[in-house]
Amino acid sequence: MKKSDTLRDEIKDLKRKRILDAASELFFQHGFKGTSVEAIASHLQVTKPFIYYHFENKADILAGVCGRTTAFVAQSAEVAAAGSGGVWQRLESLVRDLSLRVIEGRVYLAVYFREENHLPKSAFRDLSRNRTRFDTALSKLLREGIDAGEFHIPNISVATQAITGMTTWIFNWYRPTGSLTPDQIAEEMVGLVSSMVRRPSPDADGGRILTSPS
Amino acid sequence: MKKSDTLRDEIKDLKRKRILDAASELFFQHGFKGTSVEAIASHLQVTKPFIYYHFENKADILAGVCGRTTAFVAQSAEVAAAGSGGVWQRLESLVRDLSLRVIEGRVYLAVYFREENHLPKSAFRDLSRNRTRFDTALSKLLREGIDAGEFHIPNISVATQAITGMTTWIFNWYRPTGSLTPDQIAEEMVGLVSSMVRRPSPDADGGRILTSPS
Repeated sequence: MKKSDTLRDEIKDLKRKRILDAASELFFQHGFKGTSVEAIASHLQVTKPFIYYHFENKADILAGVCGRTTAFVAQSAEVAAAGSGGVWQRLESLVRDLSLRVIEGRVYLAVYFREENHLPKSAFRDLSRNRTRFDTALSKLLREGIDAGEFHIPNISVATQAITGMTTWIFNWYRPTGSLTPDQIAEEMVGLVSSMVRRPSPDADGGRILTSPS
Repeated sequence: MKKSDTLRDEIKDLKRKRILDAASELFFQHGFKGTSVEAIASHLQVTKPFIYYHFENKADILAGVCGRTTAFVAQSAEVAAAGSGGVWQRLESLVRDLSLRVIEGRVYLAVYFREENHLPKSAFRDLSRNRTRFDTALSKLLREGIDAGEFHIPNISVATQAITGMTTWIFNWYRPTGSLTPDQIAEEMVGLVSSMVRRPSPDADGGRILTSPS
């Protein structure tokens, strides 16, 4: 019983995901207003009732598009903030995850930033809540790193937004035809955040002194 | 003769700026499609011919809104890259300027990111050109800092986009009622970029060694 329930859920999720993928592409190309539920159905070669079985209306599909990536990253940040490993290791893994999620969800995010005005109020509130959850968790992680003496951050809320901004912005410049793979971009972001927030390690100083010319 | 020409230009600029300010507010609130030239005129308490004297049509007004901040920042970056002072001083001043421009032009930028699909093709090309100018100039400045041994940056193009992203993102979170002034936010951004790209100075190492407990 349990097994088939899980399978049923997975299939439902897969169908929802397909609808959201198609919708986000069409919203991206033609705008929310310029895309009908019929066009989404036709793009997927399914019937309109198939779509309406999964979503109430077009605004509900938009809410699904906008909510997907933001819910994932809010959860990632909360997992990182609540975790028990080294604080830098958790931040590093969050920055990596965030960069990869942004690359994967770049069309969803582009639609979100363009069309959020068309969201139903309840969805708008949910998205704001995702955002607050994300900001709170990332700030908590930065605070923990400062308290542990590992991070040097003059203003936590500006640093939170800087990290959010530099990673989110990837949606705007990433091209699949570019010279770096998503994994390479994520590693570069990890390196930049490392330089930005971590205190230089005493080892690095030792190394520099040993090789110092004078 | 020259003097009155300058005055005339300044007045023309002022009028254009007023139209763009009103238009960006209305585009922001009601969308590009939901705003008529009549509504812009009425908001400013001027006639429609007054607007049409300065702009060809509504899409031309949108091009003005989208182009204003991007042209300014492209120019700032080119000035910084071509300057002759210390490379960090020029990057510092660019990051400060960029942060302040983003805060000042946040409604313009929000409209730009939402409505760029409605831009005439020629305006779209101009904006892409501004963006390329900006990216090229900032990359050049980072390269100069690396060559001077002052910056440590593993990948210049990712670092360029990271700096662009963290500063541009301010448009999304800045609130005039927040606890930091625009100047304070700009200084925080300068500090974060400094940590991100500059090599620790030898002085700092010296200080740490002198006060080292062992």
